Amino acid sequence: MASVPAAAQAQFQNHLMPQPTQISLGSGELALDSTFAVQVPGVSDARLTDAIDRSVRRIERSAGLRHAGRGVAGKTKLVVKVDHASAPVQSIDEDESYSLSVTDAGAEIDAPTEVGAMHGLETLIQLVQPKGNGYIIPAVTIHDTPRFRWRGLMVDCGRHFEPMDVLKRTLDGMAAVKLNVFHWHLTEDQGFRIESKLYPALTAKGSDGLFYTQQQARELVAYARARGIRVVPEFEMPGHSAAWLVAYPELASGTKPDEIRREFGVSDTAIDPTREATYVFIDRFLTEMAGIFPDAYIHIGGDETPAPDWKTNPRIVAFMKAHDIKDNDALQAYFNTRVLKTIARLHRHMIGWDEVLTPGLPKDVVVQSWRGEESLFKGAKLGYAGVLSAPYYLDGMKPAGVHYLADPLPSTSDLTPEERKRILGGEICMWAEHIDARTIDSRIWPRTAAIAERFWSPENLRDVDDMYRRLEWVSIELEGVGLTHLQAEDAGLRELSGAENINALRTVASVLEPVSFGERAQTQHTDQLTPLDGFVDAVRPDPVSRQWFETAVKRFLADPKGDTADRSTLAAWFTSLSNAVPPAQQQIAISPRLAEVTLRVHQLVELTAMGQQALEQLGESRKAAKGWKEKQNQALDEIKKPSALVRFTILDGISNLVQAVSE
Amino acid sequence: MASVPAAAQAQFQNHLMPQPTQISLGSGELALDSTFAVQVPGVSDARLTDAIDRSVRRIERSAGLRHAGRGVAGKTKLVVKVDHASAPVQSIDEDESYSLSVTDAGAEIDAPTEVGAMHGLETLIQLVQPKGNGYIIPAVTIHDTPRFRWRGLMVDCGRHFEPMDVLKRTLDGMAAVKLNVFHWHLTEDQGFRIESKLYPALTAKGSDGLFYTQQQARELVAYARARGIRVVPEFEMPGHSAAWLVAYPELASGTKPDEIRREFGVSDTAIDPTREATYVFIDRFLTEMAGIFPDAYIHIGGDETPAPDWKTNPRIVAFMKAHDIKDNDALQAYFNTRVLKTIARLHRHMIGWDEVLTPGLPKDVVVQSWRGEESLFKGAKLGYAGVLSAPYYLDGMKPAGVHYLADPLPSTSDLTPEERKRILGGEICMWAEHIDARTIDSRIWPRTAAIAERFWSPENLRDVDDMYRRLEWVSIELEGVGLTHLQAEDAGLRELSGAENINALRTVASVLEPVSFGERAQTQHTDQLTPLDGFVDAVRPDPVSRQWFETAVKRFLADPKGDTADRSTLAAWFTSLSNAVPPAQQQIAISPRLAEVTLRVHQLVELTAMGQQALEQLGESRKAAKGWKEKQNQALDEIKKPSALVRFTILDGISNLVQAVSE
Repeated sequence: MASVPAAAQAQFQNHLMPQPTQISLGSGELALDSTFAVQVPGVSDARLTDAIDRSVRRIERSAGLRHAGRGVAGKTKLVVKVDHASAPVQSIDEDESYSLSVTDAGAEIDAPTEVGAMHGLETLIQLVQPKGNGYIIPAVTIHDTPRFRWRGLMVDCGRHFEPMDVLKRTLDGMAAVKLNVFHWHLTEDQGFRIESKLYPALTAKGSDGLFYTQQQARELVAYARARGIRVVPEFEMPGHSAAWLVAYPELASGTKPDEIRREFGVSDTAIDPTREATYVFIDRFLTEMAGIFPDAYIHIGGDETPAPDWKTNPRIVAFMKAHDIKDNDALQAYFNTRVLKTIARLHRHMIGWDEVLTPGLPKDVVVQSWRGEESLFKGAKLGYAGVLSAPYYLDGMKPAGVHYLADPLPSTSDLTPEERKRILGGEICMWAEHIDARTIDSRIWPRTAAIAERFWSPENLRDVDDMYRRLEWVSIELEGVGLTHLQAEDAGLRELSGAENINALRTVASVLEPVSFGERAQTQHTDQLTPLDGFVDAVRPDPVSRQWFETAVKRFLADPKGDTADRSTLAAWFTSLSNAVPPAQQQIAISPRLAEVTLRVHQLVELTAMGQQALEQLGESRKAAKGWKEKQNQALDEIKKPSALVRFTILDGISNLVQAVSE
Repeated sequence: MASVPAAAQAQFQNHLMPQPTQISLGSGELALDSTFAVQVPGVSDARLTDAIDRSVRRIERSAGLRHAGRGVAGKTKLVVKVDHASAPVQSIDEDESYSLSVTDAGAEIDAPTEVGAMHGLETLIQLVQPKGNGYIIPAVTIHDTPRFRWRGLMVDCGRHFEPMDVLKRTLDGMAAVKLNVFHWHLTEDQGFRIESKLYPALTAKGSDGLFYTQQQARELVAYARARGIRVVPEFEMPGHSAAWLVAYPELASGTKPDEIRREFGVSDTAIDPTREATYVFIDRFLTEMAGIFPDAYIHIGGDETPAPDWKTNPRIVAFMKAHDIKDNDALQAYFNTRVLKTIARLHRHMIGWDEVLTPGLPKDVVVQSWRGEESLFKGAKLGYAGVLSAPYYLDGMKPAGVHYLADPLPSTSDLTPEERKRILGGEICMWAEHIDARTIDSRIWPRTAAIAERFWSPENLRDVDDMYRRLEWVSIELEGVGLTHLQAEDAGLRELSGAENINALRTVASVLEPVSFGERAQTQHTDQLTPLDGFVDAVRPDPVSRQWFETAVKRFLADPKGDTADRSTLAAWFTSLSNAVPPAQQQIAISPRLAEVTLRVHQLVELTAMGQQALEQLGESRKAAKGWKEKQNQALDEIKKPSALVRFTILDGISNLVQAVSE
């Protein structure tokens, strides 16, 4: 039921992402012109009419219309019908379904809630396509409802601060692909990013002046709500808390930081779980935060708390003995239980990372799994609701296709139906060791759109090639809503080269991508103060070259001596890559900041030569000289080694060509 | 004294813009590494230390350093010495001079004020350049002071609203090129953009919800002050005031608008200058605004007030008769005099557009001239201080070189020394009929940097080629401070084509630019609701192709049969342009929004063919066939005609080639 009918695909360009649950193609199409009027016969309030207005403006742009939808009684109508008003705070159980029907006479969206209607509007926008001299929306009937209730994106604003406008455009992107939870990671060893009026030292001493005022936080919550997105704030405790402790050292278990932590990694500092004053502080703080963040969930972090002080501080040791607390895990469980009292008093639910799942944890707590499916399913079996994050770490710099195939709840899992219900969904994580406001967009987008489809669409949608086809289109749509994931690369290359003309560098960069967080951390010492302005920061993860090249190679290898189109396309591409090398080298030679890329550029010459030779040998059925393959494979092994913190996207494709050659 | 010594130019890459008053090159250079420490031995407050910190971060980026300037006692020092603290509000007489001395031991900036020191820091940043494997600052001694006290940029936020982040990055760009007045055009027929708590209907009814809160306005004033920039607010009266009158129709002279004006152009509505209630309103309003905008100047607009009601409304006619006011000009002069009382009571000065200059205008009022030098000089002769804007209208889409040569006060003018002092400086104007948040940057930048040099640097600097050489570099610097003038074109082309790969379209766009405001207004009906998302909005004014091509043609024509390097460079460029045509046409064919560009792309084929033929004939001293030139000139005339709201940047260069051919 999930795959798009072949007939429909033949008739319209299906760019939808996420794919709807059900779609059937009608006959004809709605021709778009500027006269269409909007009717809102059901529930109508400012949130809905603003959303409709924003959507009409986007349709206007994408269809090149003038003054669209401002007519009061044009022939073409967009009807948006909502059954009932939403609660003031969006719930995890909000009905997000909608139906969309497009005929040659108009389009109608029917939804039980405004949030459903907003999803329908996003689908409508994605349906707009050119035809002849103008733009149309194909006649379709869509019934759509999300597979998971919790479809989140976490952004770490602790390690590096992100300005409000970055977060707003992130929310715009999320809405475009129907994500519904913005998990705002607000505190870290490296910074406390939310203003507390009760405890002003938290930001005065713990933020370098980079924090969100309460007014800004409220503004972001409202901005998210206007787009059908919940905001779940995270206040990390008892670990990852150096910034709390810089401001209020009396909360520390022992180790007291002098300033916010510049180094990354797990720190030794921890909030002291044994003092009553700790809980008074947290109770007052969370009560204040609950006045800003209305969501039903409060995230307390809870991960990575080695807390060596808990084993050595005599007062803590004595406390543990007195309360029969046997180890650090048990002490953290005690801490969580105490904090949970406050959260319950505030009529909220607690959510925390894997580590909160300790014996005796109340069943109401939701576990966010960064450790993996096994941990998630173990929780579900024990009765805990959970959200999967492990396969969706964007800083792993994995291709979208890899993330896409990771399912929060495969039908093959051994969970019972009751346990399956406890898997609320998934959350994409954007940790911020190596991102700043200039680079965050390309790290999040467009890969996040592919994962958003995994969270929304039916499980059996697993065609990676088709996903990539649609992703390239959605990527442009995302740039249209204000994201900078494509343009930032060019800006970075211009800055590095000091030149406006970066055609050659752009071509070289098109086959390079950043290495993973782990590889970068091993190779380069970075901390919070390291400028993120190198070549690695300019290039994008998973550029289109990988998928395009691997697909072209596959097609060519299926029949190397047949149709020569693939061979000549590949040959021309190799030529364009190698032609870019000399001018790129000229720019590198006069820009010391680019010097580190010298080896990679040299290797690109090797790779394209290798590819050209393989093409020729395969196309002409020639055998390679003895030892040729071994030589190429040695070269490939060499090229796989770390250099300049970037790696080639075309290694697998080249290797496939090489291995196909006979000797 | 203004031109850069040839010796210096030979030894370092002088990218400075604006050029300093005096620069002399020392021997050696300051090698940049991460160890340098900053010392601030004189006046030091948060404004200065924040500015230093921002500057060090930028040096860090441009020199590829890590943790620069955080050392407490590194070998290399940056010393910033300020003599005396600034007044809380920056005055037009602020001493902005500075001296900068760089040796191999360190850099020192000496300035009487923090503002001067900030200018010195911007110069220091522009001096950073690559050498060998690293970056250096050449040893120099600079004594620098601005030629004019008033170096402004006006941004019209009335016709189209600009978000805060756009304005902040605009201020960052202004600071980088030492502009010191942000003239904030806050009210227009099309929108009232500043919150009034006394008169909330002004924005409630007059802004479509798009306005700056008082807190935001204060934030912007502080942001500007932190960068040595004054903020002069403009409240247009009595004309261009439809947005006032939508909210408070009782202020109208007769014609009452139903909603804010969507059409552009001069409107008939005007505030009624004959009712006492008008002055009570304006007095209270300006008093409120004076609490937000501390600058010594308040701009009251005052231009384009045909006010037909003043001739027909019997009450107004009677008032004029009773007060012996003979015509509309005199009535507006009466109005200005009344408003001036409030402004004087607030201890501020009035500034207005040309039209305020009417007989009897108090000498304290500053006249901003949009009509031209003649009007400006006339004012100066009458005793009025003035600011020149006419030659700096960015919406005329003129090349930077044209703006650059327009001098606010040529030494050839016949003004007396006393009158010359009355020319305070110049202001660049960015009117907003045809710009929005996505396109504003490329309309303002980088051309504004060239004009900023005109306002700052000595009059005798008039080498347009050298200006363009430096402008290309400064353009990249401006992108580095956050402006999007380069990347926005690509984003627009991707949106229009729906494709990520826009190499061919980008090449085509590189020789096209938007037509002037006037030509667009004649060709296309636009109003405030017209989406600004066409090809014309994507392309940039004055792309580098014009200057590059004209210079290359000039060099080639100087010796067509000599060194063949220029000829082959030009030929290769023509080939790359014409090679881009087929793939561009393919993208145009499937994107109706690009269809309008079809003719221009076809014409590009003609132009490159014409250029290639001329190159061959000139290079081989062949005569063209009889009639060839006439045919080419006819084709050029055809290509000069309007199409797609864009024009070619290469017409003059091609024409120069064609005319040089003998028949």
